[in-house]
Amino acid sequence: MKLLKSQKTFHGFSEVYEHDSKLTGTSMKFSIYRPEEVSTIRGGLIWLSGLSCNEENFITKAGAQRFLCELGLVLICPDTSPRGLNLPKEHESYDFGSGAGFYVDALTEGYRDHYKMYSYINEEIYSLFDSMFSLKGQLGIMGHSMGGHGALMLGLRNPDKYKSISAFAPVVNPMQCAWGQKAFLGYLGETDSRPYDSCELLRAGHRHPQSILIDQGLADDFLEKQLLTENLEKAAFEARQPLIVNYREGYDHSYYFISTFVESHIRFHSDQMESNR
Amino acid sequence: MKLLKSQKTFHGFSEVYEHDSKLTGTSMKFSIYRPEEVSTIRGGLIWLSGLSCNEENFITKAGAQRFLCELGLVLICPDTSPRGLNLPKEHESYDFGSGAGFYVDALTEGYRDHYKMYSYINEEIYSLFDSMFSLKGQLGIMGHSMGGHGALMLGLRNPDKYKSISAFAPVVNPMQCAWGQKAFLGYLGETDSRPYDSCELLRAGHRHPQSILIDQGLADDFLEKQLLTENLEKAAFEARQPLIVNYREGYDHSYYFISTFVESHIRFHSDQMESNR
Repeated sequence: MKLLKSQKTFHGFSEVYEHDSKLTGTSMKFSIYRPEEVSTIRGGLIWLSGLSCNEENFITKAGAQRFLCELGLVLICPDTSPRGLNLPKEHESYDFGSGAGFYVDALTEGYRDHYKMYSYINEEIYSLFDSMFSLKGQLGIMGHSMGGHGALMLGLRNPDKYKSISAFAPVVNPMQCAWGQKAFLGYLGETDSRPYDSCELLRAGHRHPQSILIDQGLADDFLEKQLLTENLEKAAFEARQPLIVNYREGYDHSYYFISTFVESHIRFHSDQMESNR
Repeated sequence: MKLLKSQKTFHGFSEVYEHDSKLTGTSMKFSIYRPEEVSTIRGGLIWLSGLSCNEENFITKAGAQRFLCELGLVLICPDTSPRGLNLPKEHESYDFGSGAGFYVDALTEGYRDHYKMYSYINEEIYSLFDSMFSLKGQLGIMGHSMGGHGALMLGLRNPDKYKSISAFAPVVNPMQCAWGQKAFLGYLGETDSRPYDSCELLRAGHRHPQSILIDQGLADDFLEKQLLTENLEKAAFEARQPLIVNYREGYDHSYYFISTFVESHIRFHSDQMESNR
């Protein structure tokens, strides 16, 4: 593992690392924010980014460091796909291939050898992050858009690993929207994709013991056709999964929206950690 | 004037505008943050960015909106040079030409027709901003690096227009560093450049009635050869110009450094406005 950058931010450091991933078979980058005083660290957060993002968008734009530092939390932000490959159709569109791993383990030719983003996050990043900061499983997961899908789906499938789940403008029902359908077809072919769909996971009996937190802007251009927030509300209601959805008048899909509400999400995760510790 | 983007951020809007500048003879962009409630607006801040930045760096990375909103301040962030031209050597380096206007009124061939960044800020942007939000002269000026030079120099030359001055890692003595020497030679030729050098302005008798605030990281790679902070401390001491310089251990030249201390700068300007109102 190689430290590429380390820049003091509040009382801590914003850092970028590179490591050789066994699962993707490539060199992968991730960013970290860590409070300077190791003794203050109470837990960790995994942030999963959206389409076209890399490991740096969140850490440069969300303004999270102030609160991570205050609350004694480390955060890791992985990249959204393997890089440096040249697979068929990998670099042709923003919603498939590079920058668009969709947090699944691919099964289709070419992609199955590298696009193992589900296991990359759930095993490789999880273990590396947990051991790097001795978190002893005190981890929450959060994300935005495609990464919100990742956070919900990973959290519902692994409630013992992720103590709390939150999302900004998540893709909640990928099987029912164009982004998800394109990704699932390209990565999974004709294989059953329900294990990667949060609404279907709830229908199949998956639960998380804590409330799930979602913030969703009402001026978000993707709400109606891609995000489908109401589908998750319906599935959670039927499954009796506690869910808080804050619809926010006037906010769009951008990091300006995230920066406005990131404090409340970080405090949400922090509160869950205290009660679990 | 054309509104290109408007995105809700905290209780206000991050916006990008485009207008035809009479002074540069080009179309220029700037960004604005404005609290939603017009009645809460108490004053305005002009932010001048550094080399290679455009009108969006500050507004996407500094995390200032939270505090501008809280304190009822609007902020304008102009671009750092004219764009869309093709003058000799304009696009060859990061420290001259596009993205590097250095806040002077150019005199050299080609540049003198467009690179009028001193007057563009001091007249065109100032008037437009003042009238857009009925600020009645309640304006402060701040900036980073090359933009820190701009803030100090504009503020010292026009103490009646700018009620308060602050800077992050400013170029304080451009005549004595490579960045400034290259810019002044390219834009001013052999003409006396002292009216654009903050240390020389202090020596020539220019003063600001308020204390000037500077934050400077001690892990800033440019401190020793380009920024020369101590030269301003010396000049201010000799001129009895009140100056606060906060040297910050471990911080570099980046927006991570700015995001850490931007709250204190915004409060500094806000406090001056109250006492001036």
